[in-house]
Amino acid sequence: MSEAIKLKGIIPPMVTPLAARDQLDSGGLERLVEHILAGGVHGLFILGTSGEAPSLSYRLRRELIDRTCSQVDERVPVLVGITDTSFVESVNLACYAAEAGAKGVVLAPPYYFPAGQDELIEYVDHLIPELPLPLTLYNMPSHTKLMFEPETIRRVMDNSAIAGLKDSSGDMVYFHRLQTFLRNRRDFHLLVGPEELLGETVLLGGDGGVSGGANLFPRLYVSLYEAAAAGSHRRVKELQSIVMHISNTIYSTGRFSSSIIKGLKCVLSLEGICNDFMAEPFHRFRRVERERTEKHLRAIKRELAVVFDRNTV
Amino acid sequence: MSEAIKLKGIIPPMVTPLAARDQLDSGGLERLVEHILAGGVHGLFILGTSGEAPSLSYRLRRELIDRTCSQVDERVPVLVGITDTSFVESVNLACYAAEAGAKGVVLAPPYYFPAGQDELIEYVDHLIPELPLPLTLYNMPSHTKLMFEPETIRRVMDNSAIAGLKDSSGDMVYFHRLQTFLRNRRDFHLLVGPEELLGETVLLGGDGGVSGGANLFPRLYVSLYEAAAAGSHRRVKELQSIVMHISNTIYSTGRFSSSIIKGLKCVLSLEGICNDFMAEPFHRFRRVERERTEKHLRAIKRELAVVFDRNTV
Amino acid sequence: MSEAIKLKGIIPPMVTPLAARDQLDSGGLERLVEHILAGGVHGLFILGTSGEAPSLSYRLRRELIDRTCSQVDERVPVLVGITDTSFVESVNLACYAAEAGAKGVVLAPPYYFPAGQDELIEYVDHLIPELPLPLTLYNMPSHTKLMFEPETIRRVMDNSAIAGLKDSSGDMVYFHRLQTFLRNRRDFHLLVGPEELLGETVLLGGDGGVSGGANLFPRLYVSLYEAAAAGSHRRVKELQSIVMHISNTIYSTGRFSSSIIKGLKCVLSLEGICNDFMAEPFHRFRRVERERTEKHLRAIKRELAVVFDRNTV
Amino acid sequence: MSEAIKLKGIIPPMVTPLAARDQLDSGGLERLVEHILAGGVHGLFILGTSGEAPSLSYRLRRELIDRTCSQVDERVPVLVGITDTSFVESVNLACYAAEAGAKGVVLAPPYYFPAGQDELIEYVDHLIPELPLPLTLYNMPSHTKLMFEPETIRRVMDNSAIAGLKDSSGDMVYFHRLQTFLRNRRDFHLLVGPEELLGETVLLGGDGGVSGGANLFPRLYVSLYEAAAAGSHRRVKELQSIVMHISNTIYSTGRFSSSIIKGLKCVLSLEGICNDFMAEPFHRFRRVERERTEKHLRAIKRELAVVFDRNTV
Repeated sequence: MSEAIKLKGIIPPMVTPLAARDQLDSGGLERLVEHILAGGVHGLFILGTSGEAPSLSYRLRRELIDRTCSQVDERVPVLVGITDTSFVESVNLACYAAEAGAKGVVLAPPYYFPAGQDELIEYVDHLIPELPLPLTLYNMPSHTKLMFEPETIRRVMDNSAIAGLKDSSGDMVYFHRLQTFLRNRRDFHLLVGPEELLGETVLLGGDGGVSGGANLFPRLYVSLYEAAAAGSHRRVKELQSIVMHISNTIYSTGRFSSSIIKGLKCVLSLEGICNDFMAEPFHRFRRVERERTEKHLRAIKRELAVVFDRNTV
Repeated sequence: MSEAIKLKGIIPPMVTPLAARDQLDSGGLERLVEHILAGGVHGLFILGTSGEAPSLSYRLRRELIDRTCSQVDERVPVLVGITDTSFVESVNLACYAAEAGAKGVVLAPPYYFPAGQDELIEYVDHLIPELPLPLTLYNMPSHTKLMFEPETIRRVMDNSAIAGLKDSSGDMVYFHRLQTFLRNRRDFHLLVGPEELLGETVLLGGDGGVSGGANLFPRLYVSLYEAAAAGSHRRVKELQSIVMHISNTIYSTGRFSSSIIKGLKCVLSLEGICNDFMAEPFHRFRRVERERTEKHLRAIKRELAVVFDRNTV
Repeated sequence: MSEAIKLKGIIPPMVTPLAARDQLDSGGLERLVEHILAGGVHGLFILGTSGEAPSLSYRLRRELIDRTCSQVDERVPVLVGITDTSFVESVNLACYAAEAGAKGVVLAPPYYFPAGQDELIEYVDHLIPELPLPLTLYNMPSHTKLMFEPETIRRVMDNSAIAGLKDSSGDMVYFHRLQTFLRNRRDFHLLVGPEELLGETVLLGGDGGVSGGANLFPRLYVSLYEAAAAGSHRRVKELQSIVMHISNTIYSTGRFSSSIIKGLKCVLSLEGICNDFMAEPFHRFRRVERERTEKHLRAIKRELAVVFDRNTV
Repeated sequence: MSEAIKLKGIIPPMVTPLAARDQLDSGGLERLVEHILAGGVHGLFILGTSGEAPSLSYRLRRELIDRTCSQVDERVPVLVGITDTSFVESVNLACYAAEAGAKGVVLAPPYYFPAGQDELIEYVDHLIPELPLPLTLYNMPSHTKLMFEPETIRRVMDNSAIAGLKDSSGDMVYFHRLQTFLRNRRDFHLLVGPEELLGETVLLGGDGGVSGGANLFPRLYVSLYEAAAAGSHRRVKELQSIVMHISNTIYSTGRFSSSIIKGLKCVLSLEGICNDFMAEPFHRFRRVERERTEKHLRAIKRELAVVFDRNTV
């Protein structure tokens, strides 16, 4: 297995540009990768929740891996989501990703059958020898029903093939509890999912974030990460307030919990970067939400222009 | 599309006999199909929850469809589960099933992203034109997080391609509510999942059950169905008490909610019918649970012998 | 302690007629008691969920106990809900009820702190010696968060001071599981809460129901009980369909889960029996819902007239 | 109504020292109040969740209000929890508290009936005119099932009688969202419940915490608050790591979610401050947990001695 790399900073969970139900928007994908990388991010995570991975066919997932790794061309490490209800399909995808040049894989618990924590430990123990790449565990309990509990992390983290954890539970007590456990695993990366929590987690010792908004404004999140890593909590508060503005508007426009992904794709479409087609069971924002999003976008850009030079965000 | 068939009676959700992680127990599969059909069942449902479908590779799912349809050889209709988080993979599997000779497909809501009911309706509306077989909807909220709410069923059920509903929610108020709505859809089958509820649902107008225990004792469930359909509630109570005995022992042996499938496979292994290998994230019952199951099995067989001629259950 | 009585049949959970926030509608209360008793019910349960007990001051609860016991005057046994988060207040209310002539008390788990099952067992063990009346346990997990699990019931039910269980979980697998355990406790009453499930539970051996609709149409529920107890499942289906009509209309008019109580009070107000004032945090149906309810009521009465002599329901 | 005071800093949720089921440990109460006040706290909150309020009789609650207000004697403001399922009992307790000299009341949503957000707004609108003291809203969804959603806060917070919010949801996205809304309500206090989150919330603009651990080590939490308010994030990290040590040991000793209160009372008993008797449905830690707690306590005190002068924590 290739050696685990300690990740730090902003690793955006890339949305998957689609032209139709089972068709990539390949031009949009190229533009999106370049847009994100231009923001100075530290890695790229494809086929996560924001990437709508579970809704995509395996054929399309493989095509996305190929095209993304080729486009990134080792400028930053690419991580590939392999979360699946089928152990065999997870392994298949991991092997494919390794061949294509990815540097790590990311796995949430299998999400159909509700397994016990002992079963999760065994699952991970069985999986690791089959994986050609370092593994980042992933908590996303709102979608997978269960998560890796602190005691479970403690029992599996001595395995050096486990490179880190991405926590999207939003449960900061859990996050701080893990930080205590991880004092002696200096090479383990602890990343936070919800971007609203990026500032505080990095201020208090976290390693970075998998921030969806970095699809749109990568430099904002990179700057917030850097300010927090440097302990400039005044700058953190300033940038955090724009992140909250995005969260309170773009992500809160639709009625359902899928609004975050829909909002991300809508802005990318408004910006001419890629198509906003969504895989079933979702559909893109319709006219009313799109117009509302456009208005919000203008206000956010004005705020960004105040704290950044206009051309660099 | 082939015409929808009104299903009635017992359609067992077949467990998937496995020899190893990605290998069917093909001898066991043949014996299991014959064992179930010998019990007089009215159909066979493969690749459902009891069949561990989400845990299996797509390759193995296709092999199972081929072998089962071939073994059944049109003696009863075969239904195939196509529940998936990916719309395209659901359609792929449905097409494969139609080619192999299946008579219907069964679909629970996509289970990663939590969709709204409006999105579910649109999902079904998009799906039906792509399906070559009649569709039975399937509620399994403990595993899929959301279910088809009564109003959703009311809005989609006028589509004649929807043949029926299998409800495993265990919510009998919901079940009775649907029965009210369905008064004018005589060709729609309303089947109950939990076998503990088979007697009462059929007594009060339901069409039958997808009873996991019919993998083990098909004639027991067929007899219970027939007694209920005939309104013999005294016989229903007698047979129901054996069903509860199975539920209180075989299905309650392990610690986790997966005990039902583990218990089913353990008994089939004890009976020499098929292997009890389980796909990850589960594993078969270990020695203690196996011995306990064996003891329970003997007691249940004694009860069965009292109410049936020993050789026919 | 007075001896436990085995309850059977219909024990309506009486709504609490209110004239204002902390004031009984005492005339309405008299009329309501007489209306219900005229229907031939087998008991009366006050200060349950339908009685809005947790929303009432203790002073008003005591007044209601006095007035109801006095009005009923031993024609049927009166049961009093003593569910509380405070052990001491539960005991206080039980003592008051015994003095006033009630025949039993009803208790759901304390509902603020989430206790473990072991703690619940200890709670019941501590409580029973303090109670002057037989205790009916009560499951209402949608409101109390936890319920008495089957194993908990098995461990406490040998105490003869526990007279029975009222189950409003709607979980029929649980209900049937308990029936199995209770085979040797012939004096234990097992009552079902949701009226939609009354028919089937009694057909299969349950003892009766605590049916909210019996506030409105007591004879309907008494007849349904009698038909089920006699095994007339055809009559059960006929009456059950009216029960479902009530459930699908009156109880489903408002947006929130409180619609059942609001619907009950609205009908009682339309019928001139009592005031429909609701304790906070709820308010009565407003004009639109009231008009809709009136229309539904007319349709239900037409159905009732078909299956009963018009003047007797 | 007395004018709302803007609270800041540490307002410990005091545990209720009990000698027996319905009897205060009055000596323990005096010692506990003095112990907490000696730590430099900014207020005192009685009859909250840590105070086991819902488990206490109303008589005992009133006695606690009297004794605490008298002991505190206006050295810091006393806040009194009035959360109740009964509107009238909440008002009664608020009036009693005002008479006794309390400076504010704290209210979580009524926790038996699941109200809609519109109903919650109406509830608060009805309540405020009846209250003689400023109101702090309180989110505790693990115990009350529902919370004040952001939009609900936005709609009620213009009422100047609402002095602030104590959020124990642990949901930091929610917390940051409220901070955005509250920019123009400078007199509104936003306090965090879980002490594990005290550091970050104050660093990013929160007003303080209702930290259970301040029953034990008031100066630790006051110092953490002061460090965060001053933006010394290095000192925050140092003190935060002791808070996490307490959380990972004292609060995690028992099996159930009640371990926090049990752990607090156990330490106070080990320290000779007050009795560790718990109101039903809980009981104090037994010998094994007590011994484990004693060991943890020694380790925590060693850590405290390193960062503080031994005699001042």
